[in-house]
Amino acid sequence: MSASPSVVVFDVNETLSDMSPMAQRFTDVGAPAHLAKLWFASLLRDGFALTAAGGARPFAEVGVDGLHTLLRGVDLDRDLDAAVDHVMGGFSRLAVHPDVPDGIRTLRASGRRLVTLTNGSTSVSEALLTGAGIRDQFEALLSVEDAGAWKPSRVAYEYAARTCGTDPAGMLLVAVHPWDVDGAARAGLGTAWIDRAGTPYPRSFTPPSLRATGLTDLAEQLS
Amino acid sequence: MSASPSVVVFDVNETLSDMSPMAQRFTDVGAPAHLAKLWFASLLRDGFALTAAGGARPFAEVGVDGLHTLLRGVDLDRDLDAAVDHVMGGFSRLAVHPDVPDGIRTLRASGRRLVTLTNGSTSVSEALLTGAGIRDQFEALLSVEDAGAWKPSRVAYEYAARTCGTDPAGMLLVAVHPWDVDGAARAGLGTAWIDRAGTPYPRSFTPPSLRATGLTDLAEQLS
Repeated sequence: MSASPSVVVFDVNETLSDMSPMAQRFTDVGAPAHLAKLWFASLLRDGFALTAAGGARPFAEVGVDGLHTLLRGVDLDRDLDAAVDHVMGGFSRLAVHPDVPDGIRTLRASGRRLVTLTNGSTSVSEALLTGAGIRDQFEALLSVEDAGAWKPSRVAYEYAARTCGTDPAGMLLVAVHPWDVDGAARAGLGTAWIDRAGTPYPRSFTPPSLRATGLTDLAEQLS
Repeated sequence: MSASPSVVVFDVNETLSDMSPMAQRFTDVGAPAHLAKLWFASLLRDGFALTAAGGARPFAEVGVDGLHTLLRGVDLDRDLDAAVDHVMGGFSRLAVHPDVPDGIRTLRASGRRLVTLTNGSTSVSEALLTGAGIRDQFEALLSVEDAGAWKPSRVAYEYAARTCGTDPAGMLLVAVHPWDVDGAARAGLGTAWIDRAGTPYPRSFTPPSLRATGLTDLAEQLS
């Protein structure tokens, strides 16, 4: 990657947002908390399957579909549609991880351009960053809905580069997900893997250019 | 699809094999049983991500990677590598669903050519079908490892059609997974969705040409 990327592009779900409160949304409706992780993995599985087959459907639609499959047969405290709505509503109430505001401000203060690129909708990114008081640090909030293909397809990263008027090599993708790091690296971007939990990086995926324990650590490494 | 497909191509994991004993493999090593489903969804998520990004790694490698991530931090009764081996070993001990032997024999007796196409290795398919006494009903056991891309990429289905010397339109893909039905339909195959549990078919995916409650039901519909 470029020694000093001019544009830093952040994944949103789990990278900026803390998704752990989604488990409470499941228990709220009478479902086991552990279904939250299964649901999110299944949502990405299905979205990536569509991408691999040449299709693209909105993130929220795939998420709702997955809940209908997963909550069928669970002894819910309300009807299925209301339970699905309650879980989906959790997405727009998430907060950022504690390291995000300081890390973002330091990166922005260093003169870098900051954008987001999500497989979800920009409205969720907008609510998340506004709630954290850091919306003004970002030049643009991008969604793959305007790219025609979900990350980790090359098409999604090239859309972001084109929109920012830069080459992929001038961008740094920041994500907690190895699949995002891998896709960005294959598309020619520099990559930073945020590992807040101390997990091993999977051998199957292209390794990141940088590893950091959070965004303040990343900002220090790039200073 | 063709009114009478000449080649029927079966998915293997969960479509022919009953994967529910994998949960016991997790409890054997001291991990919660519910991790089995999360692991398999994550394995497919990561494999499909690689496919969407233009890569391809062996199924078992992606599976082992996923276990290293998932079992980290779990209070196991043995060391991590031994636990990973024990879970992975479960794949080659699975049995077929009860409806499989009769359904397969009836379909074969009707003069159709039967093959399998798995994202896994052919050795797992070989052990599964030999154990069930129906290996001789199949003309070939195919793996995407020879196609260069996992299902649901079009490349995988086209590989199967080419290997069988037929057009995609002359083939019927049989699977329990909507993502497999969707990918096969996009590649021009007829599709049969096996729904043993009565779950809703997701709106995000291309609907199947046929729906059946098991392979005996499918064989009746095709007779």
